[in-house]
Amino acid sequence: MEIKITKTENPKEKQTENLGFGKVFTDHMFVMDYERGKGWSNARIIPFENLNLHPAATVFHYGAEIFEGLKAYRTKDGSVQLFRPIENVRRMNNSAERIGLPQIPEEDMLSAILEFVKVEQDWVPYGEGESLYLRPFMFGNDEHLGVHSINRASFLIIASPSGSYYAEGINPVKIMIEDQDVRAVRGGTGYAKCGGNYAAATRAGEKAEKLGFTQVLWLDGVERKYIEEVGAMNVMMKIDGEIITPMLSGSILPGITRKSIIELLKSKGYKVTERKISIDEIIDALKSGKMEEFWGCGTAAVVSPVGELYYEGETYVINDNKIGETTQMLYNTLTDIQWGRTEDKFGWITRI
Amino acid sequence: MEIKITKTENPKEKQTENLGFGKVFTDHMFVMDYERGKGWSNARIIPFENLNLHPAATVFHYGAEIFEGLKAYRTKDGSVQLFRPIENVRRMNNSAERIGLPQIPEEDMLSAILEFVKVEQDWVPYGEGESLYLRPFMFGNDEHLGVHSINRASFLIIASPSGSYYAEGINPVKIMIEDQDVRAVRGGTGYAKCGGNYAAATRAGEKAEKLGFTQVLWLDGVERKYIEEVGAMNVMMKIDGEIITPMLSGSILPGITRKSIIELLKSKGYKVTERKISIDEIIDALKSGKMEEFWGCGTAAVVSPVGELYYEGETYVINDNKIGETTQMLYNTLTDIQWGRTEDKFGWITRI
Repeated sequence: MEIKITKTENPKEKQTENLGFGKVFTDHMFVMDYERGKGWSNARIIPFENLNLHPAATVFHYGAEIFEGLKAYRTKDGSVQLFRPIENVRRMNNSAERIGLPQIPEEDMLSAILEFVKVEQDWVPYGEGESLYLRPFMFGNDEHLGVHSINRASFLIIASPSGSYYAEGINPVKIMIEDQDVRAVRGGTGYAKCGGNYAAATRAGEKAEKLGFTQVLWLDGVERKYIEEVGAMNVMMKIDGEIITPMLSGSILPGITRKSIIELLKSKGYKVTERKISIDEIIDALKSGKMEEFWGCGTAAVVSPVGELYYEGETYVINDNKIGETTQMLYNTLTDIQWGRTEDKFGWITRI
Repeated sequence: MEIKITKTENPKEKQTENLGFGKVFTDHMFVMDYERGKGWSNARIIPFENLNLHPAATVFHYGAEIFEGLKAYRTKDGSVQLFRPIENVRRMNNSAERIGLPQIPEEDMLSAILEFVKVEQDWVPYGEGESLYLRPFMFGNDEHLGVHSINRASFLIIASPSGSYYAEGINPVKIMIEDQDVRAVRGGTGYAKCGGNYAAATRAGEKAEKLGFTQVLWLDGVERKYIEEVGAMNVMMKIDGEIITPMLSGSILPGITRKSIIELLKSKGYKVTERKISIDEIIDALKSGKMEEFWGCGTAAVVSPVGELYYEGETYVINDNKIGETTQMLYNTLTDIQWGRTEDKFGWITRI
């Protein structure tokens, strides 16, 4: 795939303080167009600019939108690297298949990501825990209101230098178990990284925030009995020495950090089980003191220890509200690989 | 609410042939902006133009989008009228509440619709069955990538002169019962008119189309046993003289045509029951010959007779593939009210 590069004539000054997350954007963006029958074309890196879209474009009405999230890391020797980008490429195509958007040949999407990072590599920040967050996204762009198959789409990548998730240290979070709203159900779009899943989750997230919680833990849509994920993260726990995580049932996002942690733990000889986990089992483990650790995992946080779980009027404290041994080990090992501080035995790193 | 009107200096020539649906747009659009803390402001009618949006705008990533659909009808005396617009206003606010978008005071949204139609009234077509389709829609517009509550939003109305849904006569459609994909589930967003529901439905719709069906009939997400809706329409049927329709369970869109038909039938002394309807009950009725009529209902089609139902490898023909007596009566009565050919005893009409 040929990518035409047009560099900006007005590069921005690079912000280095108070980056936050997803607020500052780089000088360029990658764009590619799809038309049914013609396929993908016009791959280009152009100066970062607003999108100019017809008000009837599918993306505004029928939720035809998917995305990915990954980071470019600055290593000690000043080089730039990515963590398992091919996994993002594959998940993006799986998301596309589910909601009727066109797929992109794996090698093309990967080379778009790599080429774009190469152009923006000076934007990868140097600070502890900082990274360049990459956001590939795709949306349907037909300019009429009929409910229909997608005939036109756009694929873009934008990038945002982002601060450390743990600028103030790794503090365990408080999570509320949501028993009203449902995020996704078997047969639905839960495993796809599509806009609708996030729209379904907004109301419960706001409720949780008002009550002083960081996020909600979702229950399954069929029985409202089995835990699923924390919206922006998968969850894992250590009960009585065993590490368990909800199995991928179709309604849970197949996290790349989740997958990496499972592979990492297995390589270290831990027993990890992917299965259905009922909320009753969790409450029992919390009451009996067998819940040793509980954490979320995802690209943004890597791992996020959960210090308190709230369910049906009760608050349960986990591991004295401190980060657990396994959680800390996972954080250290993964971030050491991602920032190139240790050898990558798994072949997860792609250097730019 | 004050609405600032800026008329176009280049009015388009009004297309009158081959209008289709949602393909041709009028000269203007209504736009209004929301900012948390400040509320809605800057209500304006401006020349129809593309939207210029930041690539990180919430609507492209997190599915923060809802819409409505209603029609402006041209009556015999040349005037223009709407059908129950307040119902669209209320549903839009319910949709907003579900996915965390800001609500709009009812009287403001209604006056936006009425004022906009007044400006565009010359665009309401004169042909049999033609109308001006109105599309109010709202989306989140925060310019950063954090998953968060919406702080900025836009509300717009665009309009499209549209042809008769039944330009070739009312032909019964073929519907496939979908037993794999799920559109919505109790606790989810099924009752909201939001983009995610349509994205979840696209793949099954494409499959149905390839197999020669018009649309799919959805089953509930919990037991996959009870019928829900046909994606773009609610469904109703007459079994052994009784009219039944799926009850509103939270996963079904509360259709305004559905509501009007129920009120209309009750006023005429029909027995109408809203309840759970299992697919087994439907198949039994089809096999025993007790399924007298089956139809979809919605704003676009008004009513759409179903002539064939396909389920688990079997095709079931309904009423000899002809439109039924009740279906025809409903079509005539509703369209007579909508196009002002009969007295509106229900107070459903708003004249411009």
